[in-house]
Order: sequence, then structure tokens, then C-alpha cells
Amino acid sequence: MKDTQSQRDERGIAIDRVGVSGVRWPIVVWDRQFEKQGTTATFKLAVALPSEFKGTHMSRFIEALNEYRGEVTFKTLPRLVAELRTRLTASSAVVEVRFPYFVEKRAPVTNAVGRMDFDCWFRASGGESGDTFQMGITVPVTSLCPCSKAISDYGAHSQRGYVTIEVRPTKSDDNGVMLIWFEELIQIAGEAASCPVYPILKREDERYVTMHAYDKPAFVEDIVRDCAVSLQRDGRVSWFKVNVENHESIHNHAAFAEVEWQR
Amino acid sequence: MKDTQSQRDERGIAIDRVGVSGVRWPIVVWDRQFEKQGTTATFKLAVALPSEFKGTHMSRFIEALNEYRGEVTFKTLPRLVAELRTRLTASSAVVEVRFPYFVEKRAPVTNAVGRMDFDCWFRASGGESGDTFQMGITVPVTSLCPCSKAISDYGAHSQRGYVTIEVRPTKSDDNGVMLIWFEELIQIAGEAASCPVYPILKREDERYVTMHAYDKPAFVEDIVRDCAVSLQRDGRVSWFKVNVENHESIHNHAAFAEVEWQR
Amino acid sequence: MKDTQSQRDERGIAIDRVGVSGVRWPIVVWDRQFEKQGTTATFKLAVALPSEFKGTHMSRFIEALNEYRGEVTFKTLPRLVAELRTRLTASSAVVEVRFPYFVEKRAPVTNAVGRMDFDCWFRASGGESGDTFQMGITVPVTSLCPCSKAISDYGAHSQRGYVTIEVRPTKSDDNGVMLIWFEELIQIAGEAASCPVYPILKREDERYVTMHAYDKPAFVEDIVRDCAVSLQRDGRVSWFKVNVENHESIHNHAAFAEVEWQR
Amino acid sequence: MKDTQSQRDERGIAIDRVGVSGVRWPIVVWDRQFEKQGTTATFKLAVALPSEFKGTHMSRFIEALNEYRGEVTFKTLPRLVAELRTRLTASSAVVEVRFPYFVEKRAPVTNAVGRMDFDCWFRASGGESGDTFQMGITVPVTSLCPCSKAISDYGAHSQRGYVTIEVRPTKSDDNGVMLIWFEELIQIAGEAASCPVYPILKREDERYVTMHAYDKPAFVEDIVRDCAVSLQRDGRVSWFKVNVENHESIHNHAAFAEVEWQR
Repeated sequence: MKDTQSQRDERGIAIDRVGVSGVRWPIVVWDRQFEKQGTTATFKLAVALPSEFKGTHMSRFIEALNEYRGEVTFKTLPRLVAELRTRLTASSAVVEVRFPYFVEKRAPVTNAVGRMDFDCWFRASGGESGDTFQMGITVPVTSLCPCSKAISDYGAHSQRGYVTIEVRPTKSDDNGVMLIWFEELIQIAGEAASCPVYPILKREDERYVTMHAYDKPAFVEDIVRDCAVSLQRDGRVSWFKVNVENHESIHNHAAFAEVEWQR
Repeated sequence: MKDTQSQRDERGIAIDRVGVSGVRWPIVVWDRQFEKQGTTATFKLAVALPSEFKGTHMSRFIEALNEYRGEVTFKTLPRLVAELRTRLTASSAVVEVRFPYFVEKRAPVTNAVGRMDFDCWFRASGGESGDTFQMGITVPVTSLCPCSKAISDYGAHSQRGYVTIEVRPTKSDDNGVMLIWFEELIQIAGEAASCPVYPILKREDERYVTMHAYDKPAFVEDIVRDCAVSLQRDGRVSWFKVNVENHESIHNHAAFAEVEWQR
Repeated sequence: MKDTQSQRDERGIAIDRVGVSGVRWPIVVWDRQFEKQGTTATFKLAVALPSEFKGTHMSRFIEALNEYRGEVTFKTLPRLVAELRTRLTASSAVVEVRFPYFVEKRAPVTNAVGRMDFDCWFRASGGESGDTFQMGITVPVTSLCPCSKAISDYGAHSQRGYVTIEVRPTKSDDNGVMLIWFEELIQIAGEAASCPVYPILKREDERYVTMHAYDKPAFVEDIVRDCAVSLQRDGRVSWFKVNVENHESIHNHAAFAEVEWQR
Repeated sequence: MKDTQSQRDERGIAIDRVGVSGVRWPIVVWDRQFEKQGTTATFKLAVALPSEFKGTHMSRFIEALNEYRGEVTFKTLPRLVAELRTRLTASSAVVEVRFPYFVEKRAPVTNAVGRMDFDCWFRASGGESGDTFQMGITVPVTSLCPCSKAISDYGAHSQRGYVTIEVRPTKSDDNGVMLIWFEELIQIAGEAASCPVYPILKREDERYVTMHAYDKPAFVEDIVRDCAVSLQRDGRVSWFKVNVENHESIHNHAAFAEVEWQR
């Protein structure tokens, strides 16, 4: 049967990334509280294609994914990247995977317990110029406006904000990267904001978070800076990008702030 | 050339609605302040298909839309519906159209002016059992939690909420329906909430809306009820459905309330 | 501490549904191949609120969800509905839950295996007028246009279509409803379409699905009707709604058809 | 009244971008056929904030937008950028604006006319290191699989694909950039694909596009390369990124290819 993809291409255009996207797949990730967590992911898998080949073999991406039966972590994703390079005879490959991650979280006063969901992702690439690994999370938080508090006789508008932290961990001795838990990034975001958000709050808890947020007003600028300060202090972080977006309760648009940094 | 669609079908299944969706098109709608407003819409157009016909002629929907050069209003949409019935020899037809609608709005103290956007829609249908017309809008608002205020020594969490109002206007004498402006529904939603939201607020305005919201705490239950009371009082409204959804600033989920009513 | 929600309301407006939405939570569902499947869900939970109460207690929805540790099935969801009615002293309650569901699927010729994802949902309600249960799924399929094939010397345009089937199962002897597997609805949709879609296809498989689709052209009207015929024949189905939407490869809009039916 | 934003910040973190996002606003853009076109846009506006200032004044972004009454083009956006730098005393500013753009398009045989919608965007920035301008468009196309055609006795699967072209125009003599029309990028994408897509096709047209696509099979790799070749030849293009994404009709995931290039 004819192998169209393997034909020669004469246009002289090398392709940076070719592959599949929107591939949904159940996965298992590491969980700081409970060791492992099953969740559902969306994958993007790609390789570089030299200018002389007409096409790549798309089915091999799914084959590789299907055979990859272990956890999806900073330890194992580089192996999937290497597997793609081999299987598709490619000089470089990249894997991106996004998934909801759940953390059991207790209310601050009553200890009422529930699950909080966070959008998380990993990105691993490998090629002749070396390997890279990146992780990211969006953490919903409460923000309370310092200006509104300062200029009003009472009250201050608050809203839900989203703190997105992306980090590249520092290289570790074993040729991989250092472990950073999503739970650590969640804590950094929650402490930078006016208050963390919770899955369940009884009245005693609601009183607590209301006054806690009022006592700690924060602009998007403040939240992004406090996150930046925390991440700069952490030797395991070699690069980060933090974006904070407030869904302003007094407007129909968002306010945002963004900082990128390299050690 | 063979007309596959006009062939006879033997399965005995009449189709309730068949047509096109996701059709984006520039339109003109009525504007209370400035008479007319150009905007961009997404259309769904459909007809009923009797069991004996294999298919409908999809290109005729776009032809009808293309020839329909006027405004999109409660007056003209029923004509497009009638046109579809004729052109596609259908016993009934329906048109749904969604678009952002812009209103020039002034800040409450400084009068600083900007545009506010609202998601709006019309739905018109016509058939042997008569015509129907429905309009809807989603109005962003500020809501401030009465419980949070009552139990806290200071502060109260607020957030952006979305008030979605759908109404069927009462039949008018001229065989159509009575005119209801989007601006009237916006006002109903804003008055039911803790505070309307604004495109632009200077510091004096921010102080005003902060204290206004604190002075008028409202649950989703309160907002949906106040909208219901206003709409019931309005003789031009023969049916409504109101949904209020708060993007809680202390949780990562929403609170909502819904009321449907028929005169 | 003041219980604002329990205060008396004088507006005379009963609320049809009040509760929480957008609650993401890990769940376990029944799996025809592997018995059980862990996945991630989004819940909407609500109760009716009589006109005399000011508000409902939103935290109780999450408490009920947190204590509900078993599988999410047609057997257990009615129990969560009953639990909500008790816990919130409500005359009626409703639970909607949406989740990706994964099926291991083999390529038609080579048997190459992969996972296919489907958007699925359950809706259970309970009240004085009885209980209802509904399930739904969106099945991606290949559709090939009969008109395009009939009028062209060679070729025929094909595209991805989405078959959405919602059913209410017939009441069973044990006071519940009859079991219908998602896999059965997937099969109905795949057989009605020009061809099912697959997670992985080697060249031999691609040849097979290409010619299979060409041999079985189908309009959205055909697909919706074939699904309707299959569902009407199945005594376990007391009601259904089928929507077929083709993301036309020759247009930038979709074609759709819809049939609703009650036994 | 206290100006919280103007207070001194001691954390030593400069903010790369701070501003507003999700601002919907009606705009006018240049139209090659009809000179001008009204449409609806979503803006993101931001400035850099030095480490010593606590916050920016968000309302000034909307004031600037409100006063900016002209067209949104490669000529005028740099002026809005400059205005933001002045108004917010910022060393750099950036404006991103996304909008649907409509083109009147005729069917290839019957000349039946309709509107096609395209997602378009501009991005303009200005700072001490100079100005940049970038434009982008997503063009829906038909793609027909060369492998499927080569290995099958008849037929070949086709699907809707999306060609996203982003370009930075070459600097012009008048200190701005050279004019590139969206219509030119639409043509490049349509010629690279198996066939352009159309708003309206009568049967003669459908026959034409079916056979045209069958005669010109193209992988995502082919489409991205043909676009790259066309753009490299055009002296007005100093940089481009092309992404092609096929919504495979035989899978539930997409295939994609991506090339970035700098003159």
C-alpha cells in the first residue's frame, strides 16, 4: 500500500511542529495528599519534520500514547517525548497535556471538607539542543480592591481572580528537573491574593474569609508581584511567568497583570 | 443534475427542525439611544421537514439571509420566518439570532462615558399553530452577599453576576407583538442587583458603587425575585424566564436561581 | 450567628431552581467493558424554594456531594436527589452531571486499539410529581454528503458530525429505570452515520473507512432518522431527542437536524 | 481622595504588562471591497509598570478607547498605543484587538453570493526599543487527505481545516508598515488548501468544489508549506507564523502543523 507520507518533498520548508491536538485521554498524576490521582487530560503531541519528507505518520502518536501506561509526571513525560522522537524518527518532539487537578481542601474555621479543581498542564520537549520541562496551573482566588477600600466609608468590591503560574523547574542532579508540587503553587497564589477560595464554607468560615479579604486588599499588580517574589526566592524555579486576571465585579471586563522572569 | 434532497423517504420520521447553525453575519438592530446599531450576529435557521422528503435545501437558508437586507427586529424577523416557509415549502420555520448589543453608559457620579456590551438574542417562529417571538439578554451586574455582610464585623464579599432575562412580548393590535427595549431589561436587572456594572468608573464613581452595593446586598434568590416582580407588573410581558448566576468570589463555582412564569 | 437565608420573604415568588453550578468533581461511572471508570465531572445541583423563604443554604449542596462517595449511575443519582430534598427541606431537587466517558475502541481492519472520548451526561430529578431520569451523549461520526456524491464524477465531501442522543429510559419493576449503556447509543449513532470515527487508524483501516463512508452517504436528515428508527424500536426508551450537527467541510457553518419523540 | 495606585512600591518587581482585557467595543476596519466595515471587537490594552509604582489607572484605558473614534487599522493603532503611553506615563504599551471580518464571496460556478466570516486580529506595541505591528487571521478551508485518496479504490476523506496566518509587515518609508489586506491572506490559505470554503453553494458549485478538492489533496503539512512559500515570496512580509489544523473527519481529534519564519 502506498506510503504517501514518506514521499520526498521539494518545497524546502522544514516544519517546526506537526502532530495531533485535542486528544482526550484518562491519565494518572502524582497527588501530594493521596499519592496518585486519576483525572482526564487533553494532549497535544508533535514532532519536527525535515524539509525533505512530505508528511508524518499521525497514527504513531496515538500508538505511543496508548502504550504509555504509567503516570504523567515530570519524570515520565520526557520518556514519552523520547519515544516519539524514536518512533517518528524526529530530531525533536513536544508533548503538552492539560487536565483538571483536584485537591481536598478544608474550610478555615469549621474544617468542612470538599474538593477544589484547578486547571493544570505540563509541557515537555526534547531535541538536539536539550530537553525542557514546564508546568502550569490556574488558581482561582478572591481579590479585594485596595482603591475601593481606601476611598469608601464602608465596604470594598471583591471578585474572583485567576492566578496563572507557569514555571520551569531547575535541572536536578539525575539529569531531570526538580520536583515542584501543584500544591506549592496553589499556596503561593492563595497567599498573594486577598484570600484563597474554598469548595465549601459554613457561616463561621464565610465570616472569616470576608474579613480576611477586607484586611488584605490586593490589586492584580500586588498579586502578581507577591507571586514573583515567592518564586524568585525558590531555588527550584529557573523561569516563571505569572498572569493574574480579575473578573472585576464592577465592570464587564477583566483587569490583568503579567510578569515573566528568568533566573 | 440529480436532486437527491427531493427524493422520497420511506422511514416515516418527520423532522422537527432541519437547517443551518453557526452562520455569522453582520446585522443592524434598533437602538433606543441612537436609532440604529450595526453589530455582528450568529444565526440558526431551520424548518420542519415532513416524513416523505429525504432532505431540505440548505443553500436556500443562506440565500434568504442574503436577500434580507433590512434591520433585524421584532417587526422584521417574522417576515424572514415567512420567507423561509415559502422558499423551503415548509409548514413551520424558526430563526434564532444572537449578537452583542452596545449601550452608551455614564458613570454614576462623574458621568464618564463608555460602551457596555450585552449578549442578546431574538427567536422567531411561525407555523400552522401561529407565530411566536421571544427576546433575551444577559446583563452583567454586581452582587453583594447579604449573609456575608450580616455575619461579618466589616466587609462583605461581592462578585460579578449575570442576569439572563428572556421574555415573550404580549401580542399587539397590528398582529405582531409589543415593543420591549433591551434597555428596559437592562434597567430591571441593574435595579434588582446590588449595583449595575459600568464600562468606566473614576474614583468618585468607584466610591459610589462600592457603598451602593454594600447598602443593597442581594442573593441570587433576591435578584431573580425582584426581576420577576418587575416583569409580572409589565403588561407587555406575556411570559418570562429569569436566570441569575453569581460567579462567587469565595468559591470556584457559581450560585444560581431560576424562575419561569406565564401570564 | 444570623441566618439570613432562613428569613421570611414577602415577595410571593417561588423559585423553580436554586443551587450551584460549575462544580467540578472526580467521579466513578459504570463501564461496560471494564466494569468501572474514573472520570471528571461538572455538576449542577438545585432545589425548589418556596416563596416564603429568603434563601437556600448553598454549602449543603457541596456537603451532600462530598458525602456521596459511590458511583454516579442511574441507580445512585436518584438517592443524591432524595438526599438533597431532605437536607435542604425541599419539595423537589435536580442533579445534572456532565463528564467525558472513554471507550476502548479497535480499528476495523488492524484492530489497533485506542481510547475514544465522548461527552456524556445524566439528569435526575425528584419531586411530588415523581422522579425523572435522563441520559445523554454526543457521538462524533463521519458523514459523507449524498448530494455531493450523486452530482460529482468522483469524490464526495465528508466531514465530522456530532450525533447527540438524549433518552429517558422506561420505568423498571424495581421502581427505578431500565439500564441503557452509553456503548449502545454510540453504536446507534455510528451505524446511522456514514462511518464511526476511531482513535487510531493504520493505512489498511483508513482505506476501509474511506470506502465505507463513500458506500454509505448520509445527510443530517438521514442520520437523525436512522437514530430515531433504532430508538423507537427499543422498548427501554420512553422518550428521546436526537440532534445531528455536521461541521460542513465546504462551508464555515453547520447543518443540523433534530427530532424529539415520546412513546 | 486617596490615590492608592500612585503609592510607592518596594518589592522591586517591574510589571511587563498591566491593563484590561475582554473589553468588547464596536469598531470600523478597512474593507478591500467596500472601503469600510463596521464590526464588533474584543480589546486587550496594557502598559508596562515600573517597579516603583503600586498600580496603574485602569479607567484610563477605557477613556482612551472611548476617545479613539476612528478606524482600527495598521495606520491608526500605533496612535492608540502612543496615546496609552502618554496617558499612563508608560515606557511601553500594547493593544490587541480581535474581531470577525466579513467578505462577500461568490460561489465558483453560479456566482451565488453570501458573506463569509473570518476571525481576525491586530497587535500593535510601542516602546523604547521601537514599534511592532502584527496581524492575523484564521481562514476555514476544505482539506482532502492525500493518503486516503492514494490507498482507496474510490473516495477520500475530507474535512474542515483552519489555516491561521500571522504576519509582521515590513516597515514602510513613512515610518509605519506596509499594507497587507486580509483578503490576500485568505487567498493564500484557500490556494494552499484542497479548496476554499464558501458561504453558499448551489448544486453546480457543490459538484465543482467536490471534484476540485479531490483533484488537489493536501495534508496539513502541504497546506502549511504552500502558505510558507507564498509568504516568503512576498516582500511585504518580514515575519510569519502559519498554523494549519484539520478537524479530521475520521477521528475525534485534530491534526496540525506549524511553521514560523523570519526574513
